[in-house]
Amino acid sequence: MCDKQPTITGFDDSPDATAALPGMPAAVPPAGVPNPKADLAALDELERHLFAHRYARIGMECHGGTIDPEAAAADRGEALAILRQEDQALLCSPETGALLDRLAASQALLTPMQAAQVRILQRDRASMVDVPPEVQGAFTRLTNEAEGVWRQARASDDWSSFEPYLDRIVSALREIAHYRDPGADPYDVWLDEHEHGTDRSFYERLFGQVKDIVVPLLADVRASSRTLGRSPFAGRFDASRQGELARDLLRLEGLDERKVFVTSSEHPFSDGLTSNYVIVAGHVREDDILSNVYTMLHEGGHALYEMGVDAALDRTSLKGGTSMGMHEAQSRFFENHVGRSLAFAPRLIEVMARQFRGQLGRVTPGQLHAATNRVEAQPIRTEADELTYPLHVIVRYEIEQLLMSGEAHAVDVPGLWAERYKGYLGVDVPNDARGALQDTHWAGGMMGYFPAYALGSAIGAQLEAAMVRGGMDFDGVCASGDLSPIHDWLRERIWRHGRSRDTPELVLDACGEPFSPTRYTDYLTKKFSALYNL
Amino acid sequence: MCDKQPTITGFDDSPDATAALPGMPAAVPPAGVPNPKADLAALDELERHLFAHRYARIGMECHGGTIDPEAAAADRGEALAILRQEDQALLCSPETGALLDRLAASQALLTPMQAAQVRILQRDRASMVDVPPEVQGAFTRLTNEAEGVWRQARASDDWSSFEPYLDRIVSALREIAHYRDPGADPYDVWLDEHEHGTDRSFYERLFGQVKDIVVPLLADVRASSRTLGRSPFAGRFDASRQGELARDLLRLEGLDERKVFVTSSEHPFSDGLTSNYVIVAGHVREDDILSNVYTMLHEGGHALYEMGVDAALDRTSLKGGTSMGMHEAQSRFFENHVGRSLAFAPRLIEVMARQFRGQLGRVTPGQLHAATNRVEAQPIRTEADELTYPLHVIVRYEIEQLLMSGEAHAVDVPGLWAERYKGYLGVDVPNDARGALQDTHWAGGMMGYFPAYALGSAIGAQLEAAMVRGGMDFDGVCASGDLSPIHDWLRERIWRHGRSRDTPELVLDACGEPFSPTRYTDYLTKKFSALYNL
Repeated sequence: MCDKQPTITGFDDSPDATAALPGMPAAVPPAGVPNPKADLAALDELERHLFAHRYARIGMECHGGTIDPEAAAADRGEALAILRQEDQALLCSPETGALLDRLAASQALLTPMQAAQVRILQRDRASMVDVPPEVQGAFTRLTNEAEGVWRQARASDDWSSFEPYLDRIVSALREIAHYRDPGADPYDVWLDEHEHGTDRSFYERLFGQVKDIVVPLLADVRASSRTLGRSPFAGRFDASRQGELARDLLRLEGLDERKVFVTSSEHPFSDGLTSNYVIVAGHVREDDILSNVYTMLHEGGHALYEMGVDAALDRTSLKGGTSMGMHEAQSRFFENHVGRSLAFAPRLIEVMARQFRGQLGRVTPGQLHAATNRVEAQPIRTEADELTYPLHVIVRYEIEQLLMSGEAHAVDVPGLWAERYKGYLGVDVPNDARGALQDTHWAGGMMGYFPAYALGSAIGAQLEAAMVRGGMDFDGVCASGDLSPIHDWLRERIWRHGRSRDTPELVLDACGEPFSPTRYTDYLTKKFSALYNL
Repeated sequence: MCDKQPTITGFDDSPDATAALPGMPAAVPPAGVPNPKADLAALDELERHLFAHRYARIGMECHGGTIDPEAAAADRGEALAILRQEDQALLCSPETGALLDRLAASQALLTPMQAAQVRILQRDRASMVDVPPEVQGAFTRLTNEAEGVWRQARASDDWSSFEPYLDRIVSALREIAHYRDPGADPYDVWLDEHEHGTDRSFYERLFGQVKDIVVPLLADVRASSRTLGRSPFAGRFDASRQGELARDLLRLEGLDERKVFVTSSEHPFSDGLTSNYVIVAGHVREDDILSNVYTMLHEGGHALYEMGVDAALDRTSLKGGTSMGMHEAQSRFFENHVGRSLAFAPRLIEVMARQFRGQLGRVTPGQLHAATNRVEAQPIRTEADELTYPLHVIVRYEIEQLLMSGEAHAVDVPGLWAERYKGYLGVDVPNDARGALQDTHWAGGMMGYFPAYALGSAIGAQLEAAMVRGGMDFDGVCASGDLSPIHDWLRERIWRHGRSRDTPELVLDACGEPFSPTRYTDYLTKKFSALYNL
């Protein structure tokens, strides 16, 4: 997904900011005179304005790290802040609140889609209605600035320049969380923001089980006499041909090219403006072709989800993926369950060899499978293999928790980082640039987002298990190179619903069982035991 | 400039649409209680919202023909229409009208910049306040659709499919013009929209003088025994190297690369979101390197103007160029007066030979000068030489006038086109694709825009004459390859003022004389008499 700011925005209780956008107030009938038809028209009008702003904002956010010149950052940040302020004023006005309450109380008059719209709009409204806009505005400006500082800090491996910004961001996140829910733990507020319904106790259970399985499994792998090599993929791979390869991979994955803008950014991402327009940003390194391959499969998975949402939801608040965890479930499903399977390896090699016949024409599926599943404890999350990946996430989760509770401050982070990487992964962190400065999320004001990556991996495993239980010849589909049976399965059960259904409900209906990390830990155990002959 | 829709939008007199955007109304003090400080704060608030929407809209419009997938067109069009509707509601509300009136009446309290803002905002408001939003909305949707139809029609050389759209567009333009100014001729309304202060009588005088000089001059050129060749530039020029060349040319022209996004589109354009962010879209054809060169110099001229506007105006309605004619003056100045001069030719050859050493390493300045100034009556406006260019514009102006007056209809256009091209240029129009379907403007709802191209050429000639009269060694500056003296001259007198000053005032102050086409016709006569030994 696009590394964008949290969408929370504040609400000004001065009369000016409560005035809704043009086209709204008159469509809201005077209290006491029930007029459901007018209320439904007002709902449509509300969604129209939110749609136009969302369309504009997502584009602006995505273009920020890709095509926009650096010099545009300040103006773009200010324009985004103003558009967010308008959305907040529109959604948080007392009139809109009353409208949504009336509609929620008239379920019998609503189509299922309208009922879902009202529910999601009420949730979105609740998340911002109590945050003062000057607090939210200050936060937006702080993170705009912090992103530039972080970029510099990472480039020059200078933690100390970023340190004060991290403290200010943590403090602002605690303040905003307090406005949103004064009785709640601040970190719980942000976990819930990125994955509705989750909190620390949810992730404690998930991560507890993952650690219990993965840490000893990793030790066994490291002790194993078997080693997997990457040497067939060594060498330099021309950047412009890798650009062609990136497009070929999206095609292989089954994306409708007519709806994609492929670009590049320092930090790969994808996001959808509507189901008709998805932006996929990769990042090519000439010395690492596999990074390009798996980045594209990952981002392509996000793109498939965005494109798979029912087009009828495009111009409503139900547009797009339902949660960060479910989004990562799709991306990591295509990256790992499809992309790192032995069955799909011949198809990937075909595509890679089309651009690099001389260098990769004789690579075997087994060599690709070994190279891309080699377990290697190393310091960078986005380069992690499937087994060590959740440990990278857990490090961040634990440090975020300490920061949000006040038990640690920014100055402590490099030490905590080194200690945890050593403890969980056995890795010596080489420096802060390849340590606590590697990710953009904190600079962007996002805490509580990382856990969704691991949750997504776990859901992905559960989805594959359900496909197989339901009778799909999963390996056969991968081997055929035509992934449409997988698309159809996911579109029907997950994608098309957009935000109209929450993750737990989607998992339950798709898999016939509630969310559980056991499929994931079983999958990891089976896969890596076989690979490493444990 | 970006080939975008006219920015006129309508105004809904229902109470909902008159409610201004959040943040506005309370800043407008109750009538009868003068509060200049609150009025100035309300002006700032108004500008903030207009800035955010403008920033979003310009980006969306520019990305439409460049990076966006085709499938995004309908959603983008709808989002743009809604954003325009919001701007219209904001600017046209009675509260905003009263605010601007109060500020206009308190000139003593305003800085010169604030006074200019109020004047321009009042002008923008007046142009849309009387147009019903349903009329404007229908027009926006019509032109969104028409642009797709036009693209297809041009590709398949099928005038008849576009014909009904052109009639509907003309009829809508007449209707909207009538709302804007019931007493005015509709074509005059649109001429004024694109170039404030102009009307048919202005252009009759301009084009009369141009025709009187150019038509006989063209006949002399065609009768001349001297011919200028383009053979040194024949051949195929690799597209990706031409992409590099495009960037090199913008650098040579003196653009600050850190503020530009260079892209490509079917129809080249440039536009600025702010002075910090300009988009330049070229179009590379492997069989025509000179087209790339002069397109980039032209679009780069627009970009220099946008970047040269005082940064203090960036987030106000004074942002950007003051008129279409003045914008074309800048682009055609750099394309023709600089780019097609003999003095600059060695610098251009240097840059071209950097990418195409083998093909162009031995070309001489004289050969480039001849090739790029060869007079050739042919059917395509954007490929025209300097001498025939205004005749292409006059054809369009005359046909637009007939359409807007109802003396002709869309069905008559191909015939009128053929007749006028034969009459003024001696050219047989090969088909409609290379005839009346060649330009995107009408499909986008723009009539009255073409004349500004010729006006710009005329102003450009007046600017060069003024520089020389003021003591600039114009050829010496071009020969040096460092164009900063020209930038400085134009920035000081034209660019930095943005929309705060109108074209006639800028021309008078910069040139010490009012606008006149004589410098232009003198320039053409002198240049082409010398080239063709007349």
